Amino acid sequence: MKQKEFVVIGLGRFGSSVALNLAAMGHEVLGIDKDPELVQAVADKITHAVIADCRDEKQMNALGVRNFETAVVGIGDDIQANILISLMLKDMGIPFVAAKAQTALHGRVLEKIGVDQIVYPEKDMGARLAQSLSSNVLDFIELVPGYSIVEIVAPSKFRRKSLKTLDLRARYKATVLTIKRGAEIIPAPGGDEIIQEGDVLVILAENDDLSKLQE
Amino acid sequence: MKQKEFVVIGLGRFGSSVALNLAAMGHEVLGIDKDPELVQAVADKITHAVIADCRDEKQMNALGVRNFETAVVGIGDDIQANILISLMLKDMGIPFVAAKAQTALHGRVLEKIGVDQIVYPEKDMGARLAQSLSSNVLDFIELVPGYSIVEIVAPSKFRRKSLKTLDLRARYKATVLTIKRGAEIIPAPGGDEIIQEGDVLVILAENDDLSKLQE
Amino acid sequence: MKQKEFVVIGLGRFGSSVALNLAAMGHEVLGIDKDPELVQAVADKITHAVIADCRDEKQMNALGVRNFETAVVGIGDDIQANILISLMLKDMGIPFVAAKAQTALHGRVLEKIGVDQIVYPEKDMGARLAQSLSSNVLDFIELVPGYSIVEIVAPSKFRRKSLKTLDLRARYKATVLTIKRGAEIIPAPGGDEIIQEGDVLVILAENDDLSKLQE
Amino acid sequence: MKQKEFVVIGLGRFGSSVALNLAAMGHEVLGIDKDPELVQAVADKITHAVIADCRDEKQMNALGVRNFETAVVGIGDDIQANILISLMLKDMGIPFVAAKAQTALHGRVLEKIGVDQIVYPEKDMGARLAQSLSSNVLDFIELVPGYSIVEIVAPSKFRRKSLKTLDLRARYKATVLTIKRGAEIIPAPGGDEIIQEGDVLVILAENDDLSKLQE
Amino acid sequence: MKQKEFVVIGLGRFGSSVALNLAAMGHEVLGIDKDPELVQAVADKITHAVIADCRDEKQMNALGVRNFETAVVGIGDDIQANILISLMLKDMGIPFVAAKAQTALHGRVLEKIGVDQIVYPEKDMGARLAQSLSSNVLDFIELVPGYSIVEIVAPSKFRRKSLKTLDLRARYKATVLTIKRGAEIIPAPGGDEIIQEGDVLVILAENDDLSKLQE
Amino acid sequence: MKQKEFVVIGLGRFGSSVALNLAAMGHEVLGIDKDPELVQAVADKITHAVIADCRDEKQMNALGVRNFETAVVGIGDDIQANILISLMLKDMGIPFVAAKAQTALHGRVLEKIGVDQIVYPEKDMGARLAQSLSSNVLDFIELVPGYSIVEIVAPSKFRRKSLKTLDLRARYKATVLTIKRGAEIIPAPGGDEIIQEGDVLVILAENDDLSKLQE
Amino acid sequence: MKQKEFVVIGLGRFGSSVALNLAAMGHEVLGIDKDPELVQAVADKITHAVIADCRDEKQMNALGVRNFETAVVGIGDDIQANILISLMLKDMGIPFVAAKAQTALHGRVLEKIGVDQIVYPEKDMGARLAQSLSSNVLDFIELVPGYSIVEIVAPSKFRRKSLKTLDLRARYKATVLTIKRGAEIIPAPGGDEIIQEGDVLVILAENDDLSKLQE
Amino acid sequence: MKQKEFVVIGLGRFGSSVALNLAAMGHEVLGIDKDPELVQAVADKITHAVIADCRDEKQMNALGVRNFETAVVGIGDDIQANILISLMLKDMGIPFVAAKAQTALHGRVLEKIGVDQIVYPEKDMGARLAQSLSSNVLDFIELVPGYSIVEIVAPSKFRRKSLKTLDLRARYKATVLTIKRGAEIIPAPGGDEIIQEGDVLVILAENDDLSKLQE
Repeated sequence: MKQKEFVVIGLGRFGSSVALNLAAMGHEVLGIDKDPELVQAVADKITHAVIADCRDEKQMNALGVRNFETAVVGIGDDIQANILISLMLKDMGIPFVAAKAQTALHGRVLEKIGVDQIVYPEKDMGARLAQSLSSNVLDFIELVPGYSIVEIVAPSKFRRKSLKTLDLRARYKATVLTIKRGAEIIPAPGGDEIIQEGDVLVILAENDDLSKLQE
Repeated sequence: MKQKEFVVIGLGRFGSSVALNLAAMGHEVLGIDKDPELVQAVADKITHAVIADCRDEKQMNALGVRNFETAVVGIGDDIQANILISLMLKDMGIPFVAAKAQTALHGRVLEKIGVDQIVYPEKDMGARLAQSLSSNVLDFIELVPGYSIVEIVAPSKFRRKSLKTLDLRARYKATVLTIKRGAEIIPAPGGDEIIQEGDVLVILAENDDLSKLQE
Repeated sequence: MKQKEFVVIGLGRFGSSVALNLAAMGHEVLGIDKDPELVQAVADKITHAVIADCRDEKQMNALGVRNFETAVVGIGDDIQANILISLMLKDMGIPFVAAKAQTALHGRVLEKIGVDQIVYPEKDMGARLAQSLSSNVLDFIELVPGYSIVEIVAPSKFRRKSLKTLDLRARYKATVLTIKRGAEIIPAPGGDEIIQEGDVLVILAENDDLSKLQE
Repeated sequence: MKQKEFVVIGLGRFGSSVALNLAAMGHEVLGIDKDPELVQAVADKITHAVIADCRDEKQMNALGVRNFETAVVGIGDDIQANILISLMLKDMGIPFVAAKAQTALHGRVLEKIGVDQIVYPEKDMGARLAQSLSSNVLDFIELVPGYSIVEIVAPSKFRRKSLKTLDLRARYKATVLTIKRGAEIIPAPGGDEIIQEGDVLVILAENDDLSKLQE
Repeated sequence: MKQKEFVVIGLGRFGSSVALNLAAMGHEVLGIDKDPELVQAVADKITHAVIADCRDEKQMNALGVRNFETAVVGIGDDIQANILISLMLKDMGIPFVAAKAQTALHGRVLEKIGVDQIVYPEKDMGARLAQSLSSNVLDFIELVPGYSIVEIVAPSKFRRKSLKTLDLRARYKATVLTIKRGAEIIPAPGGDEIIQEGDVLVILAENDDLSKLQE
Repeated sequence: MKQKEFVVIGLGRFGSSVALNLAAMGHEVLGIDKDPELVQAVADKITHAVIADCRDEKQMNALGVRNFETAVVGIGDDIQANILISLMLKDMGIPFVAAKAQTALHGRVLEKIGVDQIVYPEKDMGARLAQSLSSNVLDFIELVPGYSIVEIVAPSKFRRKSLKTLDLRARYKATVLTIKRGAEIIPAPGGDEIIQEGDVLVILAENDDLSKLQE
Repeated sequence: MKQKEFVVIGLGRFGSSVALNLAAMGHEVLGIDKDPELVQAVADKITHAVIADCRDEKQMNALGVRNFETAVVGIGDDIQANILISLMLKDMGIPFVAAKAQTALHGRVLEKIGVDQIVYPEKDMGARLAQSLSSNVLDFIELVPGYSIVEIVAPSKFRRKSLKTLDLRARYKATVLTIKRGAEIIPAPGGDEIIQEGDVLVILAENDDLSKLQE
Repeated sequence: MKQKEFVVIGLGRFGSSVALNLAAMGHEVLGIDKDPELVQAVADKITHAVIADCRDEKQMNALGVRNFETAVVGIGDDIQANILISLMLKDMGIPFVAAKAQTALHGRVLEKIGVDQIVYPEKDMGARLAQSLSSNVLDFIELVPGYSIVEIVAPSKFRRKSLKTLDLRARYKATVLTIKRGAEIIPAPGGDEIIQEGDVLVILAENDDLSKLQE
């Protein structure tokens, strides 16, 4: 993986999480916030942490923000600052700008001014929690709407049966891609593999079939 | 999938997302908030939407909250209310309580008072964005720390080559679980499958190997 | 002049001035604000005056806002509402939207989201006052940058001289288009016209020449 | 044009626009505000920019405000300060004081205490926008009530016709004073001049006739 | 004494004191304030007590304020409202308007807009207290600067002496106008009158002589 | 007059007026307030002006407050501080403490804790204004309730008549103590004195008789 | 015990505790607060609970407050209201008034205005906690300064010894008044009583001797 | 008594009382608050007084908080800080943590996170005052519910009688443990002891018997 350079503006819970994770992956990260406490909290864990007001274009230039390839706008409560700074970053010519949005309409404004990726943390995590509460899904990747890879605890009715016996593909159009058994990972389990209590299955299926499979 | 009953307390961005998603999956959802605007915004999309102050145990009882099997505390800014209400719900004997936390220490308090699932929306989505920005990962499931199923755009060096030729398992200890080609899904691609421009691969691999694979 | 229909959102000093002037010219005007006092202040002078929160798309629809051909966003202090409502109006398909902007960057956002005309009242009136304080210009139309039609009190050195004698076109490349003498208007004055004390001249000239002419 | 000296008190959007425009015309400008950010924003573009509280007569004297010939009070939201400072300036003997007013009653107070010119930016710009929206007038100078010089896009019915043919003076009592054709200015167009698509006309006419001309 | 009609606007400590005293003297008093508690506190002691916002000219007219001969503006903290309402009252043609002022500059504005009497309660009572603390003066009327009628406790050195013996006119150019002896008043005491312990003297003298007299 | 030493706590409009008047009479005055602007405003006009928080007994002691013979508590809005500081001053053993009160009940508390003189500026000046508006009384000293020395403009019916002719004592039980004629003072006018237009009379009378006299 | 009637003003944590405990002991209790939530919280547990503003003497009279023999002022944060209401109660002639104080100086004011009992909850409970943390004292009654009855866990060195053997009176001038052994109470233990593990002793001693006894 | 080390966090009325009392008993006390005024008020009376924000674990560590054996959390109004800091202290491994609670639910949270002693100052002192008002009890120790040692003024019916005559044990199952007569203490009074006016009795009895005894 090539090391990259990121600037993260707004170091609240979301922004600091982005900055700290990127730094932990070995990237150069410049974090900026006008609140000294937030800056100090990440100061010794990212490449540069600076107290500045990003609504002031002069300060942005002095920090060389325009030379970064990727910027993340983590500002949340102040929608106005979020929008104005996002536009300033695009106007500076930064190739990739990701920004956090509060509402769908806010997201539409960001789209119009050219933001490249828009994230809704509260809304997206709410959806993930609902998914998990509804159907014992631990985590999931939605490949296309209605069609997902999901991580679930194996239903009790599967226990002590082999994949061949269960024949999920025929009955539920579902494919078991991987089995997690404690700390062990079984990448592409064969038909003879027998499901044990506590197994976590990674399954590819349509959402409706998945619901039936779990009943 | 069995229909369940959920109570969601706090209908801000996170709570309303949980409530709306659960309702869309066909569950009974009681949503409560003291802000009439937030209640009205979801009123015609969930089973019951009620204006009440959940810090008042009498109101909770009048609404029959203690009969629910699952409660979600979506209150965010007011950490004090978040903690006190979570405790009240556990004291009422609700079997499963999920709550949103602001900081690690806040999460620790929730754990101590018996909350069953703790969610950090901003922090978790920040981590997901960092992952995606770092390595072109579109989405991912972390099975165990350092070992994930990831959804990535196929690197250009893979194009026009068969999976057999690429031999990812030998070179990167990586397994291609699924290929998404436009609207088509190829669940367990065979060795003759040839990678095309725009293909999205779902790969199981260790994070370090994944980085090498993408270089 | 054809009667038109306008919706004006935000009835502060700027918006109410737009609404009242349009109504006085005989147009249909729907004025909207969430402040009852502001609505009441114009209620008997425009076609319809309504108390509503325009950030709520439902209320906008209930008022039939999407059927208007022209909308004016007069909201000032709340830049966020100004932007979000302007976008909502364009998304509704309203052909012409004019909005008030606070700063150049704010204006840029409005431009990006498709607002058709952007007005800066404080900045523009400041410029007009400066013009007037600097050079005795009563009013002006700037045709192209540096080239204007101006309304000035005739300099004392012009008095009792004919336009032919003054020969402004040769000496200052300036054309006297009109003379206002008390209540009388002289549209295209001839060379024999003699400038009198108190005459107001409408002159077409470059700004630099105009300065020299006034010395 | 003679260089003059101006003091501008209150450097918000209106005051800073006055100050910057006067400075750009080559005048000496002293700008004063108690907000350091506003002072800094104009500091390198005007002669002197000072942080001071103008309600304190001592500070005013220390800055030599009483020696200026013209003062502009740009303070807006704080009507009380606006009035008290305006009076202080007149009491100091400054010959010409211009001040911004918020309401008609506020303007009446300024008049009573001797302010020489009173400006209502929001109200005046609202009127200009209404004018423009109503009748495709780009800009205008109102010479006497009901009688104006206006800048309009030539109506499509005029295209490819000579001024002589159109004979506006006979039909609408209107005089075409100037034509703007792209970057070119035609000061006093002759009767043979043929109107082209995109021409902008500067016309002298009564408002009612102008409306008919545009139908 | 002829009964008169007064309107008092602002019923705080000062305004309510004016209103209650006038009512106690037998006058018709209309009291107005926007605070219901203040209105209620005087409601059964003055002729009419009304809750209204006097910045709204419509409400003033509805109450018939313009028909009063005398108005008192008792509004204190809100200098802006104090000024604007005072002007409105003068514009309505009320012959005599008295208003409370906070500072000398505020008083100057009131003077400029035509207020007939300006009162500074805090400043004036401060001066009276200083007078009393300085020289045992119980109360005083300043006839001309430096020359007053004062009410003082008779100095101990005067006791048991007749006015003739004391000969204050010769020694201090002071005239004893009246003696208050318990509940008894001696209007123009003769030379044989003997000063007793506890006598209160009303003396006409210059301030400097008065100081000497008291030493 | 003996020079005395005063401490004035709270330098708002009332306290500063007390302090400045005492200093002008030649006394030593220590003024204290926690607001630097108020302290600075009197700094060069009284003996000592100090920024301190008088609720802190240590600061009071450091300033030697306990050695003063007279203290004035001018604090107004903060009734709590007003009471606590007044008590502290009495506890320190200061012989004479005067304090400003807001309401009758507040005054009762001050009385209970031993304050020696209690002043109600707004209420007292309101009463004086009412007196003046009611009966053309310019100023007055109330000797006993209902019996006053007043300063009035001579009623027109008195003009050109001698005091003997008017015989006020017989008709109104009133005594003319002094006449002010322009800059001249006539201390004890004789019966032959003729009242002239513009004369100001100082009269001793009962209030009811005074009303009749003025009709 | 005779049933009594109490009025408790201010139903926060302190006042509601007083009111609820008195009611539980069988007394008539009238509770008053201006906050409806606080009133409602005790409404069904005390005789009368009323929403009223006790600073308003009229409301106090309407409730018959002056007929009570004992009043408790539980108002805390608002020292001003606490003082003024306490005075009003004494002025009404209520024989016994107890009030909560925040600081020593506040307590002094209450004393001066005649409050009969003054309580400092935070300060007193702080002292009790310190006592308990310092010396294993569970609870105590201070009879005179330095001399207390204390409730302590018996020190381990006492175990299995008789009181006679320990001879505390001789060695520590201490008297064991009572022993609590589990649920059993031994009122005046004899010399043969043997101390057991877990015994709680009620001892009368000087504080210094008590410290030695515990070493 | 062994000297111990205490850390007290939050130096308001409760915390400072704990800290000052502990220091007066000869213990080492570290007091911490973020408000400089509160810290200064105890600075010269306890071992160390420090300005710091205890929500910041780094500052806690820098102060060596984790080495103390006992911590008191005196923070009151900010329930959130109270909870989070209490948890931090337990997580640091401090053996004994006492904390102040506002409500029963708050106390329950503190219990869940492992706080060792929970104090409700307002509630507990309210109960004590109720006890005292109800039955002339000056102070008391509740040994077990319903059974107390109380300090009361001797009822008038006891006066001039010997304890033997009164025979309280038989009639009320009450034991007189101690008599306080002025400054004198009589530890275990004999049967011949005669009760005098003003005697204070320390009695062990059940609450119900005590009520009867006092009738």
